[in-house]
Amino acid sequence: MKTSEQVNQIIMTIEQSFKEIMSVQTDADRLLSDAMLYSLNAGGKRIRPILCLEVAHAYGADLETIKPFAFALEMIHTYSLIHDDLPCMDDDDLRRGKPTSHVVYGEDLAILAGDALLNLSAEVMLEAVMHQNGDVKFLRAMHEILKASGASGMILGQVADIKYHDQVINIEKLNFINANKTGKLLTASIVSGALLGGASVADLEKLRKIGYQVGLLFQLVDDVLDVIGNPQKLGKRTQIDEKNNKMTYPKLMGIETTQACIRQYRDEIFETLDTLSIDVKFLKALVDFLATRDF
Amino acid sequence: MKTSEQVNQIIMTIEQSFKEIMSVQTDADRLLSDAMLYSLNAGGKRIRPILCLEVAHAYGADLETIKPFAFALEMIHTYSLIHDDLPCMDDDDLRRGKPTSHVVYGEDLAILAGDALLNLSAEVMLEAVMHQNGDVKFLRAMHEILKASGASGMILGQVADIKYHDQVINIEKLNFINANKTGKLLTASIVSGALLGGASVADLEKLRKIGYQVGLLFQLVDDVLDVIGNPQKLGKRTQIDEKNNKMTYPKLMGIETTQACIRQYRDEIFETLDTLSIDVKFLKALVDFLATRDF
Repeated sequence: MKTSEQVNQIIMTIEQSFKEIMSVQTDADRLLSDAMLYSLNAGGKRIRPILCLEVAHAYGADLETIKPFAFALEMIHTYSLIHDDLPCMDDDDLRRGKPTSHVVYGEDLAILAGDALLNLSAEVMLEAVMHQNGDVKFLRAMHEILKASGASGMILGQVADIKYHDQVINIEKLNFINANKTGKLLTASIVSGALLGGASVADLEKLRKIGYQVGLLFQLVDDVLDVIGNPQKLGKRTQIDEKNNKMTYPKLMGIETTQACIRQYRDEIFETLDTLSIDVKFLKALVDFLATRDF
Repeated sequence: MKTSEQVNQIIMTIEQSFKEIMSVQTDADRLLSDAMLYSLNAGGKRIRPILCLEVAHAYGADLETIKPFAFALEMIHTYSLIHDDLPCMDDDDLRRGKPTSHVVYGEDLAILAGDALLNLSAEVMLEAVMHQNGDVKFLRAMHEILKASGASGMILGQVADIKYHDQVINIEKLNFINANKTGKLLTASIVSGALLGGASVADLEKLRKIGYQVGLLFQLVDDVLDVIGNPQKLGKRTQIDEKNNKMTYPKLMGIETTQACIRQYRDEIFETLDTLSIDVKFLKALVDFLATRDF
Protein backbone atom coordinates (compact mmCIF):
# COMPACT_ATOMS: atom_id res chain seq x y z
CA MET A 1 0.00 0.00 0.00
CA LYS A 2 1.59 3.25 -1.12
CA THR A 3 0.49 6.27 0.87
CA SER A 4 0.87 9.76 -0.55
CA GLU A 5 4.28 11.25 0.12
CA GLN A 6 3.11 13.79 2.67
CA VAL A 7 1.12 11.25 4.66
CA ASN A 8 3.96 8.77 4.40
CA GLN A 9 6.32 11.25 6.04
CA ILE A 10 3.88 11.85 8.86
CA ILE A 11 3.34 8.14 9.43
CA MET A 12 7.13 7.60 9.32
CA THR A 13 7.50 10.00 12.25
CA ILE A 14 4.67 8.44 14.19
CA GLU A 15 6.77 6.28 16.52
CA GLN A 16 9.01 9.19 17.37
CA SER A 17 5.95 11.36 17.88
CA PHE A 18 4.36 8.88 20.26
CA LYS A 19 7.48 9.14 22.41
CA GLU A 20 7.43 12.93 22.24
CA ILE A 21 3.74 13.16 23.09
CA MET A 22 4.24 10.78 25.96
CA SER A 23 7.14 12.77 27.41
CA VAL A 24 5.48 16.15 26.93
CA GLN A 25 1.94 15.16 27.81
CA THR A 26 2.61 13.09 30.86
CA ASP A 27 5.09 12.93 33.61
CA ALA A 28 4.01 9.34 33.60
CA ASP A 29 5.93 6.80 35.52
CA ARG A 30 8.59 5.21 33.31
CA LEU A 31 7.02 1.76 33.75
CA LEU A 32 3.63 3.08 32.62
CA SER A 33 4.93 4.98 29.58
CA ASP A 34 7.05 1.95 28.65
CA ALA A 35 3.94 -0.24 28.70
CA MET A 36 2.01 2.31 26.63
CA LEU A 37 4.83 2.65 24.07
CA TYR A 38 5.45 -1.10 23.92
CA SER A 39 2.02 -1.72 22.42
CA LEU A 40 1.95 1.47 20.34
CA ASN A 41 5.27 0.60 18.75
CA ALA A 42 4.68 -3.13 18.33
CA GLY A 43 4.06 -2.55 14.62
CA GLY A 44 0.63 -2.61 13.10
CA LYS A 45 -0.56 -1.34 9.76
CA ARG A 46 -1.51 2.17 11.03
CA ILE A 47 -4.64 1.95 8.89
CA ARG A 48 -6.73 4.30 11.04
CA PRO A 49 -4.27 7.23 11.13
CA ILE A 50 -3.51 6.72 7.43
CA LEU A 51 -7.23 6.81 6.57
CA CYS A 52 -7.80 9.97 8.63
CA LEU A 53 -4.80 11.79 7.19
CA GLU A 54 -5.37 10.71 3.57
CA VAL A 55 -9.04 11.71 3.58
CA ALA A 56 -8.26 15.05 5.26
CA HIS A 57 -5.46 15.56 2.69
CA ALA A 58 -7.84 14.84 -0.18
CA TYR A 59 -10.12 17.62 1.10
CA GLY A 60 -7.16 20.01 1.32
CA ALA A 61 -6.67 20.14 5.09
CA ASP A 62 -3.41 21.18 6.77
CA LEU A 63 -2.12 17.81 7.95
CA GLU A 64 0.03 19.14 10.79
CA THR A 65 -3.06 20.36 12.65
CA ILE A 66 -4.68 16.95 12.16
CA LYS A 67 -1.81 14.82 13.45
CA PRO A 68 -3.25 14.60 17.00
CA PHE A 69 -6.39 12.93 15.64
CA ALA A 70 -4.31 10.38 13.75
CA PHE A 71 -2.39 9.61 16.95
CA ALA A 72 -5.58 9.41 18.96
CA LEU A 73 -7.12 6.87 16.57
CA GLU A 74 -4.05 4.63 16.83
CA MET A 75 -4.01 4.98 20.63
CA ILE A 76 -7.68 3.97 20.86
CA HIS A 77 -7.12 1.01 18.54
CA THR A 78 -4.06 -0.05 20.55
CA TYR A 79 -5.83 0.18 23.93
CA SER A 80 -8.67 -1.96 22.56
CA LEU A 81 -6.19 -4.63 21.48
CA ILE A 82 -4.47 -4.65 24.89
CA HIS A 83 -7.78 -5.17 26.69
CA ASP A 84 -9.03 -7.66 24.05
CA ASP A 85 -5.94 -9.82 24.48
CA LEU A 86 -6.36 -10.19 28.27
CA PRO A 87 -6.82 -13.69 29.68
CA CYS A 88 -10.45 -12.95 30.64
CA MET A 89 -11.21 -11.79 27.07
CA ASP A 90 -9.60 -13.48 24.02
CA ASP A 91 -6.57 -14.70 26.00
CA ASP A 92 -4.01 -14.02 23.24
CA ASP A 93 -0.32 -14.19 24.13
CA LEU A 94 0.98 -13.12 20.73
CA ARG A 95 0.20 -9.99 18.69
CA ARG A 96 2.12 -8.59 15.74
CA GLY A 97 4.80 -11.23 16.34
CA LYS A 98 5.44 -10.10 19.91
CA PRO A 99 4.21 -11.19 23.35
CA THR A 100 1.06 -9.28 24.30
CA SER A 101 1.06 -6.54 26.94
CA HIS A 102 -0.12 -8.65 29.88
CA VAL A 103 2.51 -11.30 29.12
CA VAL A 104 5.25 -8.67 29.37
CA TYR A 105 3.86 -6.31 32.04
CA GLY A 106 1.28 -8.38 33.92
CA GLU A 107 -2.49 -8.05 33.78
CA ASP A 108 -2.69 -5.11 36.18
CA LEU A 109 -0.32 -2.89 34.22
CA ALA A 110 -1.79 -3.99 30.89
CA ILE A 111 -5.24 -2.85 32.01
CA LEU A 112 -3.84 0.47 33.25
CA ALA A 113 -1.75 1.03 30.10
CA GLY A 114 -4.96 0.52 28.09
CA ASP A 115 -6.89 2.93 30.30
CA ALA A 116 -4.08 5.48 30.02
CA LEU A 117 -4.04 5.24 26.20
CA LEU A 118 -7.80 5.86 25.98
CA ASN A 119 -7.47 8.80 28.37
CA LEU A 120 -4.46 10.21 26.48
CA SER A 121 -6.30 9.96 23.16
CA ALA A 122 -8.97 12.32 24.53
CA GLU A 123 -6.29 14.62 25.98
CA VAL A 124 -4.41 15.07 22.69
CA MET A 125 -7.60 15.61 20.69
CA LEU A 126 -8.88 18.15 23.20
CA GLU A 127 -5.56 20.00 23.10
CA ALA A 128 -5.85 20.16 19.30
CA VAL A 129 -9.36 21.59 19.71
CA MET A 130 -8.07 24.16 22.23
CA HIS A 131 -5.22 25.07 19.91
CA GLN A 132 -7.87 25.89 17.28
CA ASN A 133 -9.86 27.95 19.82
CA GLY A 134 -12.74 25.49 19.89
CA ASP A 135 -13.19 25.40 16.08
CA VAL A 136 -16.40 23.48 15.34
CA LYS A 137 -14.73 21.24 12.74
CA PHE A 138 -12.26 20.03 15.34
CA LEU A 139 -14.99 19.59 17.95
CA ARG A 140 -17.07 17.51 15.55
CA ALA A 141 -14.12 15.33 14.55
CA MET A 142 -13.35 14.61 18.20
CA HIS A 143 -17.00 13.85 18.88
CA GLU A 144 -17.14 11.46 15.93
CA ILE A 145 -14.15 9.52 17.28
CA LEU A 146 -15.35 9.43 20.91
CA LYS A 147 -18.80 8.14 19.89
CA ALA A 148 -17.20 5.47 17.72
CA SER A 149 -14.96 4.15 20.48
CA GLY A 150 -17.59 4.06 23.23
CA ALA A 151 -20.66 2.22 24.44
CA SER A 152 -22.54 2.78 21.18
CA GLY A 153 -19.55 1.81 19.05
CA MET A 154 -16.47 -0.32 19.53
CA ILE A 155 -17.26 -1.38 23.11
CA LEU A 156 -20.83 -2.25 22.12
CA GLY A 157 -19.40 -4.59 19.46
CA GLN A 158 -17.03 -6.15 21.94
CA VAL A 159 -19.86 -6.80 24.41
CA ALA A 160 -22.01 -8.33 21.66
CA ASP A 161 -19.05 -10.52 20.71
CA ILE A 162 -18.85 -11.80 24.30
CA LYS A 163 -22.62 -12.22 24.57
CA TYR A 164 -22.97 -14.31 21.42
CA HIS A 165 -19.84 -16.31 22.14
CA ASP A 166 -20.42 -20.04 21.75
CA GLN A 167 -23.79 -19.35 20.07
CA VAL A 168 -24.77 -20.10 16.50
CA ILE A 169 -25.67 -16.67 15.13
CA ASN A 170 -26.91 -15.50 11.75
CA ILE A 171 -25.22 -13.13 9.32
CA GLU A 172 -27.15 -10.09 10.65
CA LYS A 173 -25.83 -10.58 14.17
CA LEU A 174 -22.32 -11.25 12.90
CA ASN A 175 -22.47 -8.07 10.83
CA PHE A 176 -23.74 -6.16 13.89
CA ILE A 177 -20.79 -7.34 15.99
CA ASN A 178 -18.21 -6.50 13.33
CA ALA A 179 -19.80 -3.23 12.21
CA ASN A 180 -19.48 -2.01 15.79
CA LYS A 181 -16.31 -3.72 16.98
CA THR A 182 -14.25 -2.97 13.87
CA GLY A 183 -16.38 -0.81 11.60
CA LYS A 184 -17.24 2.16 13.81
CA LEU A 185 -13.63 3.22 14.51
CA LEU A 186 -12.64 2.70 10.86
CA THR A 187 -15.64 4.83 9.85
CA ALA A 188 -14.66 7.49 12.38
CA SER A 189 -11.13 7.50 10.95
CA ILE A 190 -12.54 8.33 7.53
CA VAL A 191 -15.30 10.70 8.67
CA SER A 192 -13.11 12.63 11.14
CA GLY A 193 -10.61 13.23 8.31
CA ALA A 194 -13.43 14.45 6.09
CA LEU A 195 -14.85 16.70 8.83
CA LEU A 196 -11.41 18.22 9.44
CA GLY A 197 -11.05 18.78 5.70
CA GLY A 198 -14.43 20.50 5.47
CA ALA A 199 -16.24 17.87 3.36
CA SER A 200 -19.84 18.51 2.26
CA VAL A 201 -22.76 16.82 4.02
CA ALA A 202 -23.37 14.71 0.92
CA ASP A 203 -19.78 13.46 0.88
CA LEU A 204 -19.86 12.80 4.64
CA GLU A 205 -22.87 10.52 4.23
CA LYS A 206 -21.21 8.61 1.40
CA LEU A 207 -18.01 8.24 3.42
CA ARG A 208 -20.00 6.95 6.36
CA LYS A 209 -21.46 4.22 4.13
CA ILE A 210 -17.98 3.45 2.80
CA GLY A 211 -16.67 3.22 6.37
CA TYR A 212 -19.31 0.63 7.23
CA GLN A 213 -18.36 -1.44 4.18
CA VAL A 214 -14.61 -1.08 4.80
CA GLY A 215 -15.22 -2.36 8.35
CA LEU A 216 -17.01 -5.48 7.14
CA LEU A 217 -14.49 -6.04 4.33
CA PHE A 218 -11.70 -5.79 6.91
CA GLN A 219 -13.33 -8.41 9.12
CA LEU A 220 -14.16 -10.74 6.22
CA VAL A 221 -10.47 -10.74 5.30
CA ASP A 222 -9.46 -11.21 8.94
CA ASP A 223 -11.71 -14.26 9.23
CA VAL A 224 -10.32 -15.75 6.01
CA LEU A 225 -6.73 -15.17 7.17
CA ASP A 226 -7.47 -16.92 10.45
CA VAL A 227 -8.31 -20.03 8.42
CA ILE A 228 -5.82 -19.96 5.54
CA GLY A 229 -3.26 -17.30 6.58
CA ASN A 230 0.43 -17.77 7.36
CA PRO A 231 1.04 -17.29 11.12
CA GLN A 232 4.57 -16.01 10.52
CA LYS A 233 3.40 -13.35 8.07
CA LEU A 234 0.43 -12.43 10.26
CA GLY A 235 2.52 -12.18 13.44
CA LYS A 236 -0.18 -13.98 15.40
CA ARG A 237 -1.56 -17.47 15.78
CA THR A 238 -4.16 -18.71 13.29
CA GLN A 239 -7.10 -21.10 13.83
CA ILE A 240 -7.87 -18.98 16.91
CA ASP A 241 -11.55 -18.53 15.99
CA GLU A 242 -11.93 -22.31 15.75
CA LYS A 243 -10.17 -22.79 19.08
CA ASN A 244 -12.35 -20.11 20.73
CA ASN A 245 -15.48 -21.57 19.14
CA LYS A 246 -16.22 -18.17 17.62
CA MET A 247 -18.68 -17.60 14.79
CA THR A 248 -17.03 -16.27 11.60
CA TYR A 249 -17.99 -15.57 8.00
CA PRO A 250 -16.20 -18.66 6.61
CA LYS A 251 -18.07 -20.83 9.13
CA LEU A 252 -21.39 -19.26 8.14
CA MET A 253 -20.96 -19.31 4.37
CA GLY A 254 -17.74 -21.11 3.49
CA ILE A 255 -14.37 -19.70 2.38
CA GLU A 256 -15.32 -19.25 -1.27
CA THR A 257 -18.50 -17.28 -0.65
CA THR A 258 -16.61 -15.18 1.90
CA GLN A 259 -13.98 -14.39 -0.71
CA ALA A 260 -16.69 -13.51 -3.24
CA CYS A 261 -18.21 -11.21 -0.62
CA ILE A 262 -14.87 -9.44 -0.21
CA ARG A 263 -14.73 -8.77 -3.95
CA GLN A 264 -18.32 -7.53 -3.94
CA TYR A 265 -17.72 -5.08 -1.07
CA ARG A 266 -14.58 -3.87 -2.83
CA ASP A 267 -16.56 -3.15 -6.02
CA GLU A 268 -19.37 -1.42 -4.15
CA ILE A 269 -16.90 0.78 -2.25
CA PHE A 270 -15.21 1.71 -5.56
CA GLU A 271 -18.59 2.71 -7.02
CA THR A 272 -19.37 5.02 -4.12
CA LEU A 273 -15.83 6.44 -4.11
CA ASP A 274 -16.29 7.44 -7.77
CA THR A 275 -19.20 9.69 -6.81
CA LEU A 276 -17.12 11.76 -4.36
CA SER A 277 -15.84 15.25 -5.09
CA ILE A 278 -12.20 14.39 -4.32
CA ASP A 279 -9.28 12.47 -5.82
CA VAL A 280 -9.87 8.88 -4.66
CA LYS A 281 -6.81 7.20 -6.19
CA PHE A 282 -5.18 6.56 -2.83
CA LEU A 283 -8.39 5.37 -1.18
CA LYS A 284 -8.93 2.86 -3.97
CA ALA A 285 -5.39 1.56 -3.52
CA LEU A 286 -5.96 1.27 0.22
CA VAL A 287 -9.22 -0.67 -0.25
CA ASP A 288 -7.42 -2.94 -2.72
CA PHE A 289 -4.68 -3.50 -0.17
CA LEU A 290 -7.25 -4.32 2.56
CA ALA A 291 -9.08 -6.74 0.24
CA THR A 292 -5.96 -8.63 -0.83
CA ARG A 293 -3.65 -8.37 2.21
CA ASP A 294 -2.06 -11.52 3.58
CA PHE A 295 -0.91 -10.05 6.92
CA MET B 1 -22.88 16.75 55.23
CA LYS B 2 -25.51 19.26 54.19
CA THR B 3 -25.15 20.45 50.62
CA SER B 4 -26.74 23.68 49.49
CA GLU B 5 -30.34 23.26 48.42
CA GLN B 6 -29.74 23.75 44.72
CA VAL B 7 -26.84 21.30 44.62
CA ASN B 8 -28.81 18.86 46.73
CA GLN B 9 -31.60 18.84 44.18
CA ILE B 10 -29.16 18.18 41.37
CA ILE B 11 -27.44 15.38 43.27
CA MET B 12 -30.86 13.90 44.13
CA THR B 13 -31.60 13.58 40.42
CA ILE B 14 -28.22 12.13 39.63
CA GLU B 15 -29.27 8.48 39.53
CA GLN B 16 -32.18 9.26 37.26
CA SER B 17 -29.91 11.40 35.12
CA PHE B 18 -27.38 8.62 34.74
CA LYS B 19 -30.14 6.47 33.29
CA GLU B 20 -31.28 9.24 30.96
CA ILE B 21 -27.76 10.00 29.77
CA MET B 22 -27.16 6.34 29.17
CA SER B 23 -30.33 5.90 27.13
CA VAL B 24 -29.86 9.09 25.13
CA GLN B 25 -26.12 8.92 24.69
CA THR B 26 -25.77 5.29 23.80
CA ASP B 27 -27.74 2.64 22.11
CA ALA B 28 -25.59 0.47 24.29
CA ASP B 29 -26.44 -3.14 24.69
CA ARG B 30 -28.72 -3.66 27.70
CA LEU B 31 -26.14 -5.87 29.39
CA LEU B 32 -23.47 -3.18 29.00
CA SER B 33 -25.62 -0.30 30.24
CA ASP B 34 -26.81 -2.47 33.14
CA ALA B 35 -23.20 -3.08 34.15
CA MET B 36 -22.38 0.64 33.84
CA LEU B 37 -25.45 1.65 35.88
CA TYR B 38 -24.90 -1.06 38.49
CA SER B 39 -21.65 0.52 39.62
CA LEU B 40 -22.80 4.12 39.14
CA ASN B 41 -25.85 3.51 41.29
CA ALA B 42 -24.19 1.36 43.93
CA GLY B 43 -24.23 4.35 46.27
CA GLY B 44 -21.14 6.34 47.09
CA LYS B 45 -20.81 9.73 48.65
CA ARG B 46 -20.84 11.66 45.33
CA ILE B 47 -18.06 13.85 46.72
CA ARG B 48 -16.56 14.75 43.35
CA PRO B 49 -19.79 15.99 41.68
CA ILE B 50 -20.77 17.79 44.89
CA LEU B 51 -17.38 19.54 45.05
CA CYS B 52 -17.57 20.60 41.40
CA LEU B 53 -21.14 21.89 41.68
CA GLU B 54 -20.70 23.64 45.04
CA VAL B 55 -17.53 25.45 43.96
CA ALA B 56 -19.11 26.48 40.64
CA HIS B 57 -22.19 27.61 42.56
CA ALA B 58 -20.06 29.70 44.94
CA TYR B 59 -18.61 31.52 41.92
CA GLY B 60 -22.13 32.13 40.55
CA ALA B 61 -22.17 29.66 37.67
CA ASP B 62 -25.37 28.31 36.09
CA LEU B 63 -25.41 24.78 37.52
CA GLU B 64 -27.53 23.22 34.76
CA THR B 65 -24.77 23.84 32.21
CA ILE B 66 -22.25 22.26 34.59
CA LYS B 67 -24.17 19.06 35.32
CA PRO B 68 -22.33 17.06 32.61
CA PHE B 69 -18.99 17.74 34.34
CA ALA B 70 -20.40 16.53 37.67
CA PHE B 71 -21.60 13.34 35.96
CA ALA B 72 -18.29 12.89 34.19
CA LEU B 73 -16.34 13.13 37.46
CA GLU B 74 -18.51 10.43 39.05
CA MET B 75 -18.21 8.22 35.97
CA ILE B 76 -14.41 8.49 36.02
CA HIS B 77 -14.31 7.75 39.74
CA THR B 78 -16.63 4.77 39.26
CA TYR B 79 -14.64 3.29 36.35
CA SER B 80 -11.45 3.56 38.43
CA LEU B 81 -13.11 1.62 41.26
CA ILE B 82 -14.33 -1.13 38.89
CA HIS B 83 -10.83 -1.63 37.48
CA ASP B 84 -9.20 -1.28 40.94
CA ASP B 85 -11.41 -4.03 42.36
CA LEU B 86 -10.45 -6.60 39.69
CA PRO B 87 -8.77 -9.83 40.83
CA CYS B 88 -5.47 -8.82 39.18
CA MET B 89 -5.52 -5.47 41.05
CA ASP B 90 -6.86 -5.17 44.64
CA ASP B 91 -9.13 -8.22 44.29
CA ASP B 92 -12.06 -6.76 46.24
CA ASP B 93 -15.39 -8.59 46.10
CA LEU B 94 -17.37 -6.04 48.12
CA ARG B 95 -17.81 -2.30 47.55
CA ARG B 96 -20.40 -0.01 49.10
CA GLY B 97 -22.07 -3.06 50.65
CA LYS B 98 -22.59 -4.77 47.30
CA PRO B 99 -20.68 -7.37 45.29
CA THR B 100 -18.18 -5.68 42.97
CA SER B 101 -18.73 -5.47 39.20
CA HIS B 102 -16.62 -8.48 38.21
CA VAL B 103 -18.38 -10.64 40.80
CA VAL B 104 -21.74 -9.81 39.22
CA TYR B 105 -20.85 -9.47 35.53
CA GLY B 106 -17.57 -11.33 35.15
CA GLU B 107 -14.13 -9.85 34.60
CA ASP B 108 -14.55 -9.28 30.88
CA LEU B 109 -17.71 -7.19 31.20
CA ALA B 110 -16.36 -5.35 34.25
CA ILE B 111 -13.32 -4.22 32.26
CA LEU B 112 -15.52 -3.12 29.35
CA ALA B 113 -18.04 -1.34 31.61
CA GLY B 114 -15.09 0.58 33.08
CA ASP B 115 -13.74 1.44 29.63
CA ALA B 116 -17.22 2.54 28.54
CA LEU B 117 -17.64 4.83 31.58
CA LEU B 118 -14.30 6.54 30.91
CA ASN B 119 -15.24 6.97 27.26
CA LEU B 120 -18.73 8.26 28.12
CA SER B 121 -17.30 10.79 30.58
CA ALA B 122 -15.34 12.37 27.72
CA GLU B 123 -18.43 12.23 25.45
CA VAL B 124 -20.72 14.08 27.87
CA MET B 125 -18.10 16.73 28.67
CA LEU B 126 -17.38 17.29 24.97
CA GLU B 127 -21.08 17.63 24.25
CA ALA B 128 -21.32 20.27 26.99
CA VAL B 129 -18.38 22.09 25.34
CA MET B 130 -20.10 21.88 21.93
CA HIS B 131 -23.35 23.15 23.44
CA GLN B 132 -21.39 26.21 24.59
CA ASN B 133 -19.85 26.64 21.12
CA GLY B 134 -16.36 25.76 22.31
CA ASP B 135 -16.35 28.28 25.20
CA VAL B 136 -12.82 28.39 26.62
CA LYS B 137 -14.02 27.99 30.23
CA PHE B 138 -15.68 24.70 29.31
CA LEU B 139 -12.66 23.55 27.31
CA ARG B 140 -10.33 24.29 30.23
CA ALA B 141 -12.57 22.49 32.74
CA MET B 142 -12.65 19.41 30.52
CA HIS B 143 -8.89 19.55 30.07
CA GLU B 144 -8.37 19.82 33.83
CA ILE B 145 -10.43 16.66 34.40
CA LEU B 146 -8.84 14.65 31.59
CA LYS B 147 -5.32 15.46 32.78
CA ALA B 148 -6.25 14.49 36.33
CA SER B 149 -7.64 11.09 35.35
CA GLY B 150 -4.82 10.08 33.02
CA ALA B 151 -1.20 8.94 32.93
CA SER B 152 0.03 12.02 34.81
CA GLY B 153 -2.76 11.79 37.39
CA MET B 154 -4.96 9.04 38.76
CA ILE B 155 -3.47 6.24 36.64
CA LEU B 156 0.06 7.36 37.54
CA GLY B 157 -0.88 6.99 41.22
CA GLN B 158 -2.36 3.57 40.61
CA VAL B 159 0.81 2.40 38.84
CA ALA B 160 2.99 3.77 41.66
CA ASP B 161 0.76 1.92 44.13
CA ILE B 162 1.38 -1.35 42.28
CA LYS B 163 5.10 -0.65 41.90
CA TYR B 164 5.71 0.01 45.58
CA HIS B 165 3.44 -2.80 46.69
CA ASP B 166 5.11 -4.99 49.33
CA GLN B 167 7.88 -2.39 49.76
CA VAL B 168 8.63 -0.32 52.83
CA ILE B 169 8.25 3.23 51.54
CA ASN B 170 8.68 6.62 53.20
CA ILE B 171 6.06 9.31 53.70
CA GLU B 172 7.09 11.20 50.53
CA LYS B 173 6.41 8.17 48.33
CA LEU B 174 3.14 7.44 50.12
CA ASN B 175 2.08 11.06 49.63
CA PHE B 176 3.05 10.81 45.94
CA ILE B 177 0.87 7.72 45.45
CA ASN B 178 -2.13 9.24 47.22
CA ALA B 179 -1.76 12.72 45.78
CA ASN B 180 -2.03 11.18 42.33
CA LYS B 181 -4.37 8.25 42.89
CA THR B 182 -6.90 10.16 45.00
CA GLY B 183 -5.82 13.79 45.08
CA LYS B 184 -5.66 14.69 41.40
CA LEU B 185 -9.31 13.89 40.62
CA LEU B 186 -10.53 15.57 43.82
CA THR B 187 -8.45 18.62 42.86
CA ALA B 188 -9.90 18.56 39.35
CA SER B 189 -13.41 18.40 40.84
CA ILE B 190 -12.73 21.62 42.73
CA VAL B 191 -10.71 23.39 40.02
CA SER B 192 -13.10 22.48 37.17
CA GLY B 193 -15.96 23.96 39.21
CA ALA B 194 -13.93 27.10 39.78
CA LEU B 195 -12.97 27.37 36.10
CA LEU B 196 -16.61 26.99 35.06
CA GLY B 197 -17.54 29.67 37.58
CA GLY B 198 -14.92 32.05 36.24
CA ALA B 199 -12.64 32.14 39.32
CA SER B 200 -9.58 34.39 39.32
CA VAL B 201 -6.09 32.99 38.74
CA ALA B 202 -5.24 33.69 42.38
CA ASP B 203 -8.25 31.73 43.63
CA LEU B 204 -7.52 28.87 41.20
CA GLU B 205 -4.01 28.46 42.62
CA LYS B 206 -5.33 28.43 46.19
CA LEU B 207 -8.00 25.89 45.27
CA ARG B 208 -5.37 23.69 43.65
CA LYS B 209 -3.44 23.67 46.91
CA ILE B 210 -6.64 22.91 48.81
CA GLY B 211 -7.39 20.06 46.42
CA TYR B 212 -4.01 18.50 47.14
CA GLN B 213 -4.62 18.71 50.88
CA VAL B 214 -8.19 17.40 50.61
CA GLY B 215 -6.82 14.43 48.68
CA LEU B 216 -4.31 13.57 51.40
CA LEU B 217 -6.83 14.19 54.18
CA PHE B 218 -9.26 11.86 52.41
CA GLN B 219 -6.65 9.11 52.22
CA LEU B 220 -5.48 9.59 55.82
CA VAL B 221 -9.08 9.03 56.95
CA ASP B 222 -9.47 6.06 54.59
CA ASP B 223 -6.38 4.43 56.09
CA VAL B 224 -7.61 5.03 59.65
CA LEU B 225 -11.05 3.58 58.82
CA ASP B 226 -9.43 0.47 57.37
CA VAL B 227 -7.91 -0.14 60.82
CA ILE B 228 -10.62 1.00 63.25
CA GLY B 229 -13.75 1.42 61.05
CA ASN B 230 -16.98 -0.54 61.17
CA PRO B 231 -17.26 -2.81 58.08
CA GLN B 232 -21.06 -2.61 58.12
CA LYS B 233 -21.08 1.20 58.13
CA LEU B 234 -18.30 1.33 55.54
CA GLY B 235 -19.97 -1.17 53.22
CA LYS B 236 -16.63 -2.86 52.60
CA ARG B 237 -14.23 -5.12 54.40
CA THR B 238 -11.67 -3.60 56.76
CA GLN B 239 -8.10 -4.73 57.56
CA ILE B 240 -7.65 -4.98 53.77
CA ASP B 241 -4.42 -2.96 53.76
CA GLU B 242 -2.94 -5.32 56.33
CA LYS B 243 -4.07 -8.34 54.31
CA ASN B 244 -2.65 -6.85 51.09
CA ASN B 245 0.58 -5.90 52.85
CA LYS B 246 0.06 -2.31 51.72
CA MET B 247 1.89 0.67 53.21
CA THR B 248 -0.45 3.14 54.97
CA TYR B 249 -0.18 6.25 57.14
CA PRO B 250 -1.07 4.41 60.39
CA LYS B 251 1.65 1.85 59.66
CA LEU B 252 4.20 4.60 58.99
CA MET B 253 3.38 6.87 61.93
CA GLY B 254 0.78 5.19 64.15
CA ILE B 255 -2.96 5.85 64.48
CA GLU B 256 -2.64 8.81 66.83
CA THR B 257 -0.16 10.76 64.72
CA THR B 258 -2.31 10.01 61.65
CA GLN B 259 -5.34 11.44 63.42
CA ALA B 260 -3.33 14.51 64.47
CA CYS B 261 -2.30 14.91 60.82
CA ILE B 262 -5.95 14.86 59.75
CA ARG B 263 -6.73 17.69 62.19
CA GLN B 264 -3.70 19.64 60.96
CA TYR B 265 -4.71 19.35 57.28
CA ARG B 266 -8.25 20.39 58.20
CA ASP B 267 -6.97 23.53 59.92
CA GLU B 268 -4.63 24.40 57.05
CA ILE B 269 -7.42 23.97 54.50
CA PHE B 270 -9.68 26.21 56.60
CA GLU B 271 -6.98 28.90 56.67
CA THR B 272 -6.63 28.88 52.90
CA LEU B 273 -10.40 28.79 52.40
CA ASP B 274 -10.70 31.98 54.46
CA THR B 275 -8.52 33.85 51.96
CA LEU B 276 -10.83 33.07 49.00
CA SER B 277 -13.19 35.61 47.46
CA ILE B 278 -16.28 33.39 47.85
CA ASP B 279 -18.63 32.13 50.56
CA VAL B 280 -16.84 29.03 51.92
CA LYS B 281 -19.38 27.89 54.51
CA PHE B 282 -20.33 24.77 52.58
CA LEU B 283 -16.75 23.88 51.71
CA LYS B 284 -15.79 24.06 55.37
CA ALA B 285 -18.69 21.78 56.28
CA LEU B 286 -17.61 19.35 53.58
CA VAL B 287 -14.01 19.30 54.79
CA ASP B 288 -15.28 18.74 58.33
CA PHE B 289 -17.39 15.86 57.09
CA LEU B 290 -14.42 14.33 55.26
CA ALA B 291 -12.21 14.68 58.34
CA THR B 292 -14.70 13.09 60.73
CA ARG B 293 -16.61 10.61 58.54
CA ASP B 294 -16.99 7.04 59.73
CA PHE B 295 -18.13 5.57 56.40
